[in-house]
Amino acid sequence: MTPVATLQHDTAVAGAGLASAPGLDRILRIVGADLERVNRVVVDRMQSPVALIPELAGHIIAAGGKRLRPVLTLSSARLCGYEGDRHVELAACVEFIHTATLLHDDVVDESGLRRGVPTANALWDNKASILVGDFLFSRAFEIMVADGSLKVLRTLSAASATIAEGEVHQLATTNDLSTTEEEYLEVISAKTAKLFEAAAQVGAIVADRPDTAERSLAAFGAHIGMAFQLIDDVLDYSAHQATLGKAVGDDFREGKITLPVILAYRRGAPAEKDFWRRALEDQRIEDGDLDRAIDLMRRHGALTETIERARHYASSAMRSLDGFPRTPIREALGDLVAFAVERPY
Amino acid sequence: MTPVATLQHDTAVAGAGLASAPGLDRILRIVGADLERVNRVVVDRMQSPVALIPELAGHIIAAGGKRLRPVLTLSSARLCGYEGDRHVELAACVEFIHTATLLHDDVVDESGLRRGVPTANALWDNKASILVGDFLFSRAFEIMVADGSLKVLRTLSAASATIAEGEVHQLATTNDLSTTEEEYLEVISAKTAKLFEAAAQVGAIVADRPDTAERSLAAFGAHIGMAFQLIDDVLDYSAHQATLGKAVGDDFREGKITLPVILAYRRGAPAEKDFWRRALEDQRIEDGDLDRAIDLMRRHGALTETIERARHYASSAMRSLDGFPRTPIREALGDLVAFAVERPY
Repeated sequence: MTPVATLQHDTAVAGAGLASAPGLDRILRIVGADLERVNRVVVDRMQSPVALIPELAGHIIAAGGKRLRPVLTLSSARLCGYEGDRHVELAACVEFIHTATLLHDDVVDESGLRRGVPTANALWDNKASILVGDFLFSRAFEIMVADGSLKVLRTLSAASATIAEGEVHQLATTNDLSTTEEEYLEVISAKTAKLFEAAAQVGAIVADRPDTAERSLAAFGAHIGMAFQLIDDVLDYSAHQATLGKAVGDDFREGKITLPVILAYRRGAPAEKDFWRRALEDQRIEDGDLDRAIDLMRRHGALTETIERARHYASSAMRSLDGFPRTPIREALGDLVAFAVERPY
Repeated sequence: MTPVATLQHDTAVAGAGLASAPGLDRILRIVGADLERVNRVVVDRMQSPVALIPELAGHIIAAGGKRLRPVLTLSSARLCGYEGDRHVELAACVEFIHTATLLHDDVVDESGLRRGVPTANALWDNKASILVGDFLFSRAFEIMVADGSLKVLRTLSAASATIAEGEVHQLATTNDLSTTEEEYLEVISAKTAKLFEAAAQVGAIVADRPDTAERSLAAFGAHIGMAFQLIDDVLDYSAHQATLGKAVGDDFREGKITLPVILAYRRGAPAEKDFWRRALEDQRIEDGDLDRAIDLMRRHGALTETIERARHYASSAMRSLDGFPRTPIREALGDLVAFAVERPY
C-alpha cells in the first residue's frame, strides 16, 4: 500500500491531469498556483490516525483526476475578482465530494479500472471504499463548516442530495430500454452537472457577487457539466482504453442506458431492437456485441448526434458568461469548455 | 416493494420500538409527542421523485429502530428547559445520519437480517443501499443547514467524520486477534458513542445552555453510547435471535474483534488460542464453533466482565447529570441508561 510520503509527492504532481491537457495552458497560468494549494489542502485534510484512510483516499486522489471541478471553483472566484483565500479550501471540499462519489460509484459499477489504474475497490475491497467515501464526504462538510458560510453549505448540501438522487435514478434506469431521452437528461443533470454547477456557484458566493453573477456562473457550471457527461458517454463507445484510462464498453457491459444507446435503439430496425434488448436488458452479452453496438451507433449517427448535443450545451455555457468583462480568465474559461467537448479522454 | 402509503402508516407506529421497551414509559410520557413529530419529519424528508429512495429508506426506517438517538436529542433539550421546535428537526437529522450508517454497515457486514426483518441490501441490492445511504446523509446536512446553527453543523459533521473513521478502524481490526482492549474502546467510542454524544449535545446547543451543561450532556451521551455498544457486543453471543432481531453469532462469523473475544482470547490456554485463531483470523469456522466460543467466554467470565464495563459506563452517564435539577425528565433519563444496559435486544 502507498505510504503517505509517496502520496504527497504523487499528489503534488497530480495537477498534471490538467496540466498535460491540450489547450489548457492559459487557465493553468491563472489558477495553477491556487490549484497547487488545493492539492496540498486535499492531502492535508485526508489524513487520519486510521492509516487505511490516507492510503486508500491517497490512491484515488493521486491517480490524478483532471481536477475540473476545483478548477471551476478557482476560476469562477477569479472571474468575480475575488482576492481572498476561501476559494482554495472550498475547491478542495468540492474535490472531496467528487472523490467520495467516485469511490462509491466504482463499488456500484463494479469497476476495476479508473484513469488507467486499478480502482480502490479492486485494490482494497468494497467495504473500505464505501467507508472511506463516507469519511471524505463528512470531511468535506467539516471544511465547509470551518469556512462558515451557510450559503455555501446550502449550495453544496443540496448538490450532494441531488447527486445521490441522480445516482439512484440511474440505477433505476439501468437495463431499461424504455428510459426516455428526458429521463436520461434528468439523470446526468443530477449525477454530474449539479456538482459542476455548485462548484462554479461557490466561486461567486465567496466573492460576494450579486445574484445575477451567481446565477450566470451556476448556469455556466451546469452547462459545462452536461457537455462533459455527454462526451463521457460517447467516449465509452469510442475512446481507446489507453487514452480514456478506463475500459471502453463499461457502460455497455453494465447495461447503462445513455444517450447513444437511446438514439441507436430508437432508430433501429426490429432485429436491432432485439439485439439491444438481449445485450442491455437480458444482459446476455456475446463476443463481438460491443463492436456491433458501436457499428449500429455509427450507422444511426447516435455518437455524432450526442456530440452535437454536447456542443449545444458548450455554446450555452459560453453565453452564460456574456455579462462578464472580456478578461483573460473569461477567455481561459472558454478553453475549459472546449476541453470538456474536444477531450480525447 | 413497499408503497409510500403503507410506509407512512408503518412509520407512524414505529416508535413502538421504544414504546414496547420495559421501563421506558416515563420518558415516553415526556417526549412521546415530540417523537411522533420526529417520525413525521423523517417520513416527509425521505421523499424523492426517485421512487426507490422512499421505498428503500422507508423499509429500514419503518422496521422500527429503537429511536434511542433522537430520543436523546429530544430529552436533552427538555432537560435544558428548551421550549422551541428546533430539536424535532435536528432529532430527525440525527436519525438520518444513523440510518445512513446502518445502510452502509449492512453492506459492509454482508448482513441479511436486522431487527428481525431482511436488510435493505438483501431485499434490493448493495448498490441501492450505498446510494440511498448517501442520499439520507446529504439530506441530514440539508436539515442542519435549514436549522442554520453553525455550532450544530460543527458538532454533527465532526461526529460523522469520526463515525466513518471508527468504521474504517473496525475494518482494519477485523480478523486481527492482536487488537488491544484500548483499540477496541477507540473503535466503539468512534463508531457508536460519538453519535450518542452529539445527539445529546445538540439538545443543549438548541437550548443555548452554558458550556458546562453542554459538556455534561455530551459526556452523558458518550457514556450511554459506550454502555450500549458493549451490551450489543455481549448480545451477539447470548441473545435469542427472536428478541435480538438479528442472527446471534454475526460478529463471530465476520471475525469482529469485540471485548468478549479479546478477554476470552487473552485468558485462554494455548489450545483455546489456536481455536480463536482458526475461527476468527483464518475464518475457517466449523459446526459447533459458535457454541464453543460462547462456552469459552462464559468459562472465562468474558461476557459478565463486558457487562460490568457497560455498568461502569452507565454509572458515569448518571453522574454526568449531577449538575441538573432532579426533575422528572432527569429521572426518566436514568431509565434510558438502565435500558441501554439491561435490554434483552
